[in-house]
Amino acid sequence: MNTITVKSPASVANLCCGFDIMGIALSGLYDVMTLTKREEKGISIKHIDKYNLPEDPAQNVAGVALQAMMDALQYPNGFDVIIDKQIKPGSGIGSSAASATGIVVAANELLGKPFGKKELVAFAMEGEALASGSRHADNLAPCIYGGLTLIRDTATLDIIELPIPPMYVNIVHPQIEIKTSYARQILPKEVPLKSAITQWANVAGLIAGFIKADYGLISRSLIDVIVEPVRSKLIPGFDEVKKKSLEAGALGGGIAGSGPSLFMFSENIDVAKAVEAEMIKVYKSLNIEYKTYITTIGEGVVVDNS
Amino acid sequence: MNTITVKSPASVANLCCGFDIMGIALSGLYDVMTLTKREEKGISIKHIDKYNLPEDPAQNVAGVALQAMMDALQYPNGFDVIIDKQIKPGSGIGSSAASATGIVVAANELLGKPFGKKELVAFAMEGEALASGSRHADNLAPCIYGGLTLIRDTATLDIIELPIPPMYVNIVHPQIEIKTSYARQILPKEVPLKSAITQWANVAGLIAGFIKADYGLISRSLIDVIVEPVRSKLIPGFDEVKKKSLEAGALGGGIAGSGPSLFMFSENIDVAKAVEAEMIKVYKSLNIEYKTYITTIGEGVVVDNS
Repeated sequence: MNTITVKSPASVANLCCGFDIMGIALSGLYDVMTLTKREEKGISIKHIDKYNLPEDPAQNVAGVALQAMMDALQYPNGFDVIIDKQIKPGSGIGSSAASATGIVVAANELLGKPFGKKELVAFAMEGEALASGSRHADNLAPCIYGGLTLIRDTATLDIIELPIPPMYVNIVHPQIEIKTSYARQILPKEVPLKSAITQWANVAGLIAGFIKADYGLISRSLIDVIVEPVRSKLIPGFDEVKKKSLEAGALGGGIAGSGPSLFMFSENIDVAKAVEAEMIKVYKSLNIEYKTYITTIGEGVVVDNS
Repeated sequence: MNTITVKSPASVANLCCGFDIMGIALSGLYDVMTLTKREEKGISIKHIDKYNLPEDPAQNVAGVALQAMMDALQYPNGFDVIIDKQIKPGSGIGSSAASATGIVVAANELLGKPFGKKELVAFAMEGEALASGSRHADNLAPCIYGGLTLIRDTATLDIIELPIPPMYVNIVHPQIEIKTSYARQILPKEVPLKSAITQWANVAGLIAGFIKADYGLISRSLIDVIVEPVRSKLIPGFDEVKKKSLEAGALGGGIAGSGPSLFMFSENIDVAKAVEAEMIKVYKSLNIEYKTYITTIGEGVVVDNS
């Protein structure tokens, strides 16, 4: 096999209280990447999308991730990469993670799977660091493992795959820009111990709710008293979307990653449709361009056999 | 039925990273309480133990908890209470919680079970507040529900019963005194966000480890970067006991409640015995009186039919 095409999914990190430690892969929303082995050393990247991302491999998230893998292998040859990015950069639903993971999964397949999932996350993290300015795996791990992943420890990449019951995921992406690095910069350096305790109580409830498929507990636990109060101010319409979504029956939700997208979980499609209608209403009234999606929790990067 | 005797268990709150939100009941370590209905209004308490606790019901943890229940019922008569406390007050393994929960379970049985478990926790919390100066349910809930409980929210008493795999629990109680109120007072009001994230990552790992019965994950998650560094300084021998216990094969552990007792989890009895030997060695070398126990995770308050 000399050529492979993969679909690399969007993802939602944080999930309210689980800031920096959890993420889910989304189904039906993905980048498409084609990788071809070549004799010539190095990496050539061609974007066939509309986002004007740098094609210099050293400045491209996918390029950096692939280079990390090639360095680990002391790989003597090279790759040609074609990226059709469908997940808009800066949307908050893991656009850079999709690039970073898709390429390493694709290369790993082409090379006969020399690496395991955890190593792939580590290579992808090199690419992700270029985009976000910090080393995080909360979008990467679900793209590699699929479903819901917990990153207990980033330094040792202690990644735990967790079950999550079927849910619909609404995404609304107001077309404004928030830089991940800025969203990180405005976070407080210190937080009240009381708030931290509330947060880890909700994290515990959320994990238990996911594993036990207890929708009521999931709903009660989808609360973020630390990051959301700060970051939500960067997102016009946030409070209104959240309020209306909950009134429409959503289990809960909040900022997707560092925003500006918002996500909402729902137990059934009728609620998800009602939530989407509310999201649209809010951004129409604010005269802000938006995109909405109704999706579900999905698998990780897959080889495209179509 | 006019008289009932119950056994009310010791408990371990916090479990390292789970500060203020989790607890387990212990087996084989309990107070014995006998409650008898009487015509005459009010509560009479008699302690038949060696701890010189106040017998004035308004000053006694059990008395206050029972009074809360009687007030809720507008109960016209009274109770005679005999308490044989075997869990030393101030040990960190839920002595006051045993008093507060034992009495409300006993009275609830005698009165034909007018209340559910959650209401019993609420009454017991009135008693516990007398002892600790703050409203917490992390020792109370496991005494009422048994096993491992998560208190997601204290205000609404959102208590979640969680599975926990079989483990041995070592307890060492160095015979020094730490007031719960003082142990609370020395906690920082603010904590670094970075530490808080580490803590909730470990909470997530611990809950997942318990539910999945993944001993390795439990072990890696039994880390407290926020409270233990402060409170452990109040406990002579803490670092040494912890180090030696881990070397002997313990999965992990730390301060029981607000101390001074320490707990350690082990997967098998041989390790638990080795851990106990290390605990003894440390406190002998420090010339500090101590008590050790090897126990397991147990049920809540039980009616004593013996």
